[in-house]
Amino acid sequence: MKRTQDAALRARALKVIPNGMYGHESVRMLPDSFPQFFSRAEGAYIWDADGNRYLDFMCAYGPSLLGYRDARVEAAARAQAELGDTLTGPSPLMVELAETLVSMVEHADWAMFCKNGTDATTMAMSSARAQTGKRIVLVAQGAYHGAAPWCTPIRAGTVPEDRAHVRTYGYNDVASLEAGVAAAGDDLAAIFASPFRHDAFIDQEAPDPAYARRARELCDETGAMLIVDEVRAGFRLARGSSWSDLGVQPDLSAWGKCFANGHPISALLGSDRCREGAGAIYATGSFWLSAVPMAAAIETLRIIRETDYIEHSVVLGERLRTGLDAAAAKHGFTLRQTGPVQMPQIMFEGDPDFRVGYGWAEEMLARGIYMHPWHNMFLCAAMTEADIDATLAAADAAFAAVAERRGMLEPHPILVMLAAAQAEHA
Amino acid sequence: MKRTQDAALRARALKVIPNGMYGHESVRMLPDSFPQFFSRAEGAYIWDADGNRYLDFMCAYGPSLLGYRDARVEAAARAQAELGDTLTGPSPLMVELAETLVSMVEHADWAMFCKNGTDATTMAMSSARAQTGKRIVLVAQGAYHGAAPWCTPIRAGTVPEDRAHVRTYGYNDVASLEAGVAAAGDDLAAIFASPFRHDAFIDQEAPDPAYARRARELCDETGAMLIVDEVRAGFRLARGSSWSDLGVQPDLSAWGKCFANGHPISALLGSDRCREGAGAIYATGSFWLSAVPMAAAIETLRIIRETDYIEHSVVLGERLRTGLDAAAAKHGFTLRQTGPVQMPQIMFEGDPDFRVGYGWAEEMLARGIYMHPWHNMFLCAAMTEADIDATLAAADAAFAAVAERRGMLEPHPILVMLAAAQAEHA
Repeated sequence: MKRTQDAALRARALKVIPNGMYGHESVRMLPDSFPQFFSRAEGAYIWDADGNRYLDFMCAYGPSLLGYRDARVEAAARAQAELGDTLTGPSPLMVELAETLVSMVEHADWAMFCKNGTDATTMAMSSARAQTGKRIVLVAQGAYHGAAPWCTPIRAGTVPEDRAHVRTYGYNDVASLEAGVAAAGDDLAAIFASPFRHDAFIDQEAPDPAYARRARELCDETGAMLIVDEVRAGFRLARGSSWSDLGVQPDLSAWGKCFANGHPISALLGSDRCREGAGAIYATGSFWLSAVPMAAAIETLRIIRETDYIEHSVVLGERLRTGLDAAAAKHGFTLRQTGPVQMPQIMFEGDPDFRVGYGWAEEMLARGIYMHPWHNMFLCAAMTEADIDATLAAADAAFAAVAERRGMLEPHPILVMLAAAQAEHA
Repeated sequence: MKRTQDAALRARALKVIPNGMYGHESVRMLPDSFPQFFSRAEGAYIWDADGNRYLDFMCAYGPSLLGYRDARVEAAARAQAELGDTLTGPSPLMVELAETLVSMVEHADWAMFCKNGTDATTMAMSSARAQTGKRIVLVAQGAYHGAAPWCTPIRAGTVPEDRAHVRTYGYNDVASLEAGVAAAGDDLAAIFASPFRHDAFIDQEAPDPAYARRARELCDETGAMLIVDEVRAGFRLARGSSWSDLGVQPDLSAWGKCFANGHPISALLGSDRCREGAGAIYATGSFWLSAVPMAAAIETLRIIRETDYIEHSVVLGERLRTGLDAAAAKHGFTLRQTGPVQMPQIMFEGDPDFRVGYGWAEEMLARGIYMHPWHNMFLCAAMTEADIDATLAAADAAFAAVAERRGMLEPHPILVMLAAAQAEHA
């Protein structure tokens, strides 16, 4: 594939952006052939700066729920843009959007809007502290709750005090959660949990219902707030709170990424149990009340309620998972496919340094399929059965190619560095 | 003026949003007649939910630089929206925008993009700490640098450790700055400064050149980073760094609000002196690399370079200031008009509890002019001489009305509460 534009852009970027790129969309920790820059997108597809087209299993790391540039959502956004976006106050859409989310998310009695997922998780922590008058926050070891100093996975530029009163427990580990609560004494403000364990570099894990229920009980016993971080998984597993199926309702939930199908908005939802705390904190941003993303969100939420987008993604995800297992086996590989099928994580058995996974991702990319070797992926509603079948055909060829190159594969140098650094911190 | 829609929306909002609204666009601390919800905007004007039109001197608290829905900026945004917005990687526009800002802002060698002004100021602090390996950050007492736990003006839900190593000095007070630096010993990471003192509730203050120069010298002597927070004032005073006129270049600057004329984007700019630190921190958000706001920013920055928008705003701002002084005097009032004329702050002499200011703002609002009684305001490039003359005519009538009501004016109860709370903290 041609990569001349991408290479030229990277060279320019290296001058005017530290390291040439930053954050989760930097390809620094991806196989070398992955393009950094994309020029356009439509439905399930994305085009890089050189015009190469890919079926995109990252969906912008989550925001594309219905597919890029969904015509219904874009029409709603354009109509609002004709009226106004960032104004001197919110538009009436803000009330409609809050009412909509409160009607859809079981535990929610109120909503606050912001821009980043990190805004919502940080507001959740502050609201819990304000509500309870207590300080300690329990988060699952290795869980990602954002990039603010209190939660960033990379500590450069932070000070130890940023994590004062932030303590960890093991996801799905009831005993460690109980120990953490006991150690907090009468100072527990909140327990954070993801809907499922979707940490990078490791197998994804469904929540053990006993863990979810115990987290709820412990919050009830201590007066702490239960916070579910729905930023990544929200509205991909359910049309409301992801833990409703388990019969567990949190007090607060943080939402982002996909509920306006890529338009920039996030939200903190909460129950009346934490209304006073949420009302006491100072939370604001220049663009938080902008009307266009709210119009896009209202339309996206209508589609969420009225279409079979989840069931469609599950059918396709199962087809993908089954087909990949078969194709892998044919070529002598065993995959570790974890997570909900619509948010798949694909790694290789016996591939501790990811060299096989990286090789396979490169082969898939060369065949027009954008897959990630160590991060959970996403299916969008615009994908079709034909897309999955094309993916499986590409996978068959990619497995064959990797089987052939197997002895020559090497681990990615930056990944090796990172693994060493993480081992040191652990 | 009719306010039935606004009242109905407020009643609904009270159920589904804590306190009915939050953040800087809540009207809780504004005169009671101020509408909370706005339905549309065009140029210099904004319409509330009941269809009442106002000439808007808040400009969305800054984002509207050229006027709402500027046709040139909106065309650029729409064209990019046809290609894609939030993708699996940045678009080539990101490089072009970084190059553009580096070419315009004197001290900038690189750029990083984010969403909130708070993102940019927080990244500035983290970059400075990562670069220097030191911890202490000096900020001017009372300055607003965002809503994160380390800088929020309201401390509910935060813990004292959030401000560990954040210390204050007096804006324009060289002796207090020197004392702060001395007290920091060999642990000074950064000095924060606003381009001018634009704190709420008090007279605005131009920077003393001796203060700006001394801040630079102290950073040079100690190895600390000088950070100018341009989020509010950036591109309203100059077409580059606001302190260039003073001959002072910071190492880092935080930008937001207006450089995409209301589209959601903010930025951290920095010199090579802090490139390594900025490259070391983890900074990311789901929508930070979205392409539409970058297209809007590139077009806004072109207009900034190629038009007389600043000079136009200064001419109108001087006309407004002179005219208001005359109108006030005619009715026996003395105004305290401070700040750059294009970012005016208007308060009344002998009005410690703001009762006269609130009364006058209400009278202006009733005449279709939206002005703020204690926050700096903004002129936009879409305003005309006729708008200013209409404002002055309204002001004449408003001063007369307030003069008549003067004995009956009372301070706003929430403002009284807040002032008491602030006095307690001070």
